[in-house]
Amino acid sequence: MSDALPPGSAIGILGGGQLGRMLALAAARLGLKVHIYEPAAAPAGDVAWRLTTASYDDEAALRAFAESVDVVTFEFENVPAAALDLIESLRPIRPNRRALATSQDRLSEKEFLQGIGLTVAPFAPVSSRHGLDAALATVGAPAILKTRRLGYDGKGQARLASAADADAAWQAMAGADAILEGFVEFTTEVSVIAARGIDGAVAAYDPGENVHEDGILRTTTVPATLSLSLAADAVLLAGRILNALDYVGVLGVELFVTPRGLVVNEIAPRVHNSGHWTQTGCIIDQFEQHIRAVAGWPLGDGSRHSDVVMENLIGEDMARVPPLAASGAALHLYGKAEVRPGRKTGHVNRITGPAR
Amino acid sequence: MSDALPPGSAIGILGGGQLGRMLALAAARLGLKVHIYEPAAAPAGDVAWRLTTASYDDEAALRAFAESVDVVTFEFENVPAAALDLIESLRPIRPNRRALATSQDRLSEKEFLQGIGLTVAPFAPVSSRHGLDAALATVGAPAILKTRRLGYDGKGQARLASAADADAAWQAMAGADAILEGFVEFTTEVSVIAARGIDGAVAAYDPGENVHEDGILRTTTVPATLSLSLAADAVLLAGRILNALDYVGVLGVELFVTPRGLVVNEIAPRVHNSGHWTQTGCIIDQFEQHIRAVAGWPLGDGSRHSDVVMENLIGEDMARVPPLAASGAALHLYGKAEVRPGRKTGHVNRITGPAR
Repeated sequence: MSDALPPGSAIGILGGGQLGRMLALAAARLGLKVHIYEPAAAPAGDVAWRLTTASYDDEAALRAFAESVDVVTFEFENVPAAALDLIESLRPIRPNRRALATSQDRLSEKEFLQGIGLTVAPFAPVSSRHGLDAALATVGAPAILKTRRLGYDGKGQARLASAADADAAWQAMAGADAILEGFVEFTTEVSVIAARGIDGAVAAYDPGENVHEDGILRTTTVPATLSLSLAADAVLLAGRILNALDYVGVLGVELFVTPRGLVVNEIAPRVHNSGHWTQTGCIIDQFEQHIRAVAGWPLGDGSRHSDVVMENLIGEDMARVPPLAASGAALHLYGKAEVRPGRKTGHVNRITGPAR
Repeated sequence: MSDALPPGSAIGILGGGQLGRMLALAAARLGLKVHIYEPAAAPAGDVAWRLTTASYDDEAALRAFAESVDVVTFEFENVPAAALDLIESLRPIRPNRRALATSQDRLSEKEFLQGIGLTVAPFAPVSSRHGLDAALATVGAPAILKTRRLGYDGKGQARLASAADADAAWQAMAGADAILEGFVEFTTEVSVIAARGIDGAVAAYDPGENVHEDGILRTTTVPATLSLSLAADAVLLAGRILNALDYVGVLGVELFVTPRGLVVNEIAPRVHNSGHWTQTGCIIDQFEQHIRAVAGWPLGDGSRHSDVVMENLIGEDMARVPPLAASGAALHLYGKAEVRPGRKTGHVNRITGPAR
């Protein structure tokens, strides 16, 4: 642990949502302090050593934040580059800027993944209405047009059943650079949550099987319905991504399972919703694994002791809290003051048996 | 959950040590806020919504603290009665004052336990040097003289090998009222961590087997070496204590295992060091169970999925953190700024297999 931050050190986290909150709880278990930086309301602030409420262009606040901590990480990918430049001049950012830049741009991400030999959906860049026609000629229809940056949970996306939808789809991009992606015929969607330590060690959790509703993750089930060889492929390709990016921390990889093997849907350079089951199924969860990595500690044992189903609580699901609290499941609530449709407010982990 | 505090409610905790810290982490998982009240340095403050640093005789601070929360609990038993009176005039205190008063005084505790039909070590009150002679005549030697109040981890205690040690033992009490306890011949020491909800429901964790060194808990192992009938007795007597005290929250019961059955050593009206293994061995740990109870929520599922050994880190054990971090165990550090001999600074939970 020669590179390790000693207990009592402080970790800065950009973003103060539920992922930051659960990272803060994990850091606390290890005797580390957390400083949250968040322009908006920050559920993570209630469990953090310090909270800075300031915009990402407030240089004085960014400087004071960086100087108060030993290392900086993030739970939110869309921090402006100028803010990161300032922080990086003062403290290390883990995972590194390249990992962040790669995943911030859907086009760069696809090109990177293809470049290291992984399979992705057919894609083509689109930066004009005319370009969309050209892209459709390459990719075919049906397809999905997505902004290159800033999209999540189905926002900034438009489906094209045929070329007739091109006008509406292009308008939905509001002039932003976009990428057209072909559909992939898949049987299931799985994800791998993997971590890489500062020493290059890699650890991956068992793949989980995801079910989405309205573009939002609904459940993750471990173990996934997956052959042993595909499960091994999933873990190996996550390791390839981590190594290629010289990554430090936890990364989420979403995969389509197809008759011709695994297709990488997208990567997230952070702890991931589809890894929340690790809180109940493993000795060391994804949040602690990420904190260990960014603090320069050895990765922990992420082996799975139980089968788990994780279910997200979204919007009006908060009304189900009383019965869920009585159900014997592990309930996690994020302390969000406001409930809105489509907003994740918690999740539930149910153990379904000892690990198969 | 008609009596339940809704998510977003605030729980006040008297005491800001590691127990308060781990209670705060558990409350955060349930979307509840925590306000810590602590006169000294407070490791729990780093993970709390609010921290009040004030003495227990600061009426304005106590009032503001109580008014900021919905319910008050404690991780530290020796809060002055006047402070509790003030708080109780403003907010409910859970567990109740009677439970606290009973366990704050070793004599009341023994009399209470005996009164509900449980077996305790032979004892006699001592409030003078002369009274010690009388107590020795009843209890016999060897014996141990303890202050009635404020003792923990072997402090405020003096052993008497024979009546010849009476002068020194009495002097060690520094004039405080005391209790003389006879030794109990026991094979092992176990403890039961049990909880009672606001609805009267009782849940107990499996008994753990404790090993002490120099009067401080060193390890707790689950399952304990205990016959099934004694394990059932342990759980039943914990339930009897909880019901007799109309208790709400988690209680620790330390028991001696003797050839003639279980002898109650002492009770602690709070989460307990010998219950830290539940963080790694159960879906719902003792900290969340306590928070659920004091918040009026249903108790959670405390069933054990794994065998665990919990080891305390004490004083210079902090030097072992680097190898422990790499050992595959679950490490818990308390964020204490200062390491002192005999001071608990963390613990390690090792899974030794699926639950037997």
